[in-house]
Amino acid sequence: MIERIAILGTGLLGTSAGLALRAAGFHGAIDGWNRSPEQARVALAMGALDSVADDPLDAARGAQVVLLAMPIYATLDFMEKLAGLLGPNQLVTDVGSTKRVISEAAGRLFNKPDRAAFLPGHPMAGKERGGAELADADLFRGAVWLFTDDPVAVRSAGGAALVCGWRELVLGMGAKTLDLDPVRHDELVAWVSHLPQFVATALSALLEDEVGDAPELKDVGGRGLREMTRLGASPFSMWRDIAHTNTEAVEKALLALEQRLGLLRENLRTPALRDEFERANRFRRE
Amino acid sequence: MIERIAILGTGLLGTSAGLALRAAGFHGAIDGWNRSPEQARVALAMGALDSVADDPLDAARGAQVVLLAMPIYATLDFMEKLAGLLGPNQLVTDVGSTKRVISEAAGRLFNKPDRAAFLPGHPMAGKERGGAELADADLFRGAVWLFTDDPVAVRSAGGAALVCGWRELVLGMGAKTLDLDPVRHDELVAWVSHLPQFVATALSALLEDEVGDAPELKDVGGRGLREMTRLGASPFSMWRDIAHTNTEAVEKALLALEQRLGLLRENLRTPALRDEFERANRFRRE
Repeated sequence: MIERIAILGTGLLGTSAGLALRAAGFHGAIDGWNRSPEQARVALAMGALDSVADDPLDAARGAQVVLLAMPIYATLDFMEKLAGLLGPNQLVTDVGSTKRVISEAAGRLFNKPDRAAFLPGHPMAGKERGGAELADADLFRGAVWLFTDDPVAVRSAGGAALVCGWRELVLGMGAKTLDLDPVRHDELVAWVSHLPQFVATALSALLEDEVGDAPELKDVGGRGLREMTRLGASPFSMWRDIAHTNTEAVEKALLALEQRLGLLRENLRTPALRDEFERANRFRRE
Repeated sequence: MIERIAILGTGLLGTSAGLALRAAGFHGAIDGWNRSPEQARVALAMGALDSVADDPLDAARGAQVVLLAMPIYATLDFMEKLAGLLGPNQLVTDVGSTKRVISEAAGRLFNKPDRAAFLPGHPMAGKERGGAELADADLFRGAVWLFTDDPVAVRSAGGAALVCGWRELVLGMGAKTLDLDPVRHDELVAWVSHLPQFVATALSALLEDEVGDAPELKDVGGRGLREMTRLGASPFSMWRDIAHTNTEAVEKALLALEQRLGLLRENLRTPALRDEFERANRFRRE
């Protein structure tokens, strides 16, 4: 039923989506565009696309489903541009890491009877480095693809059918889907995704300052250090938008961790340290 | 030259050392003892030992090399017990995670012409869960085995030869060796090993309190969350001794990270966030 998809943004996630659609047996056309054309050519060469578009708005106009796979503010820019161009038998969806701001824009600009449908999405998958070169048809296999759709959105029958069709394709890519309220989404990912990222960044930056030039360092660090700092390689360009659009929830999570580390520091020689280890053990058992 | 080794403590590290010695072609006798006899029987069944001793002091008396593979305070207890029992043609070595306290005890109790030699050691290898069942002949392959030997220790020729022989066996297990001053060792591992552990513990304990009962949690967390909390499963029994014997260095590292997280929290919307990401990126590039 879905036969023409446009992927705008062919970095790691967009290109992986193209590859995963192909691996899942999607036989329709996949047109792609990227701000930096070289990345689109890489995606084409990898087999994630059938064609590279010169103009993203043309590509979107010719598609049934438009996948926006770019940072959050760029997604919001395209939502503004596409809202007036597309019609009720088209669907726009995205992969942005925060959903409150995008879901608000979706309600304002899309999801009206005469407009295209918009399904806010967020696959919990990625790598610490981006780029089409690292794309992987199995990136979403076993991962959760979150949606924060508005349950009372009023859509054309065509738009509603495309939403169902896209959800089917996501399942076909090997992901599990889960629906959340957008505010609850942003609070939850502040704890389980954004907090771990910012901790890895702060820890990596601190270690760079403190022991970055210690000659023994490269040898001494083991698996624990590698894991705890792997996300330190994540690019600012992606995380800036997350920090800007989920500031309060991230601030709250960071402050809570600062207090928790202080508690642990003050109890290195008291029985409270045991309690903290046992609580941590429980989290890992679940 | 080394033909009789006693491994006191046949948990993860002790049993892995037995397996790694065998895999490296060590053909001598390996006697083992564990406070909980069941773990020693597991190590025997896995092929890490030739025999299980009823009495650890008897096992030590009959060995050329005694490997203490137990938590730090238990290691210190055995050092006290063994010092008067062993002679100058014997070597005691250990795997404890902090080295200042153990190196001090080694200087006081061993490394005199009429006493056994003591070589303080610390393999940078492990798993978040202990036990002989998880032992692995390749646990030390590619890892660094640190030593904090006293360069001016006076030893019998026999003791000195055993130190060389044990270093050879460690290389044979696939580890790289590195010599550090014990105070420098404890400062360095506070940053690259103890800080990552305590951060993982605090983060896991915080998430247990905040989202431990969220039904979506298990699904939503991805690889980043798993990695950043894996060490949360580490047992208190091992980390208590580390917290007690490296308190100041760990306090300093924790306080520095608390301040760093506060800085990041206050700059989620300022250009300083970019600096922090770039510094973290540099750490990961090295």
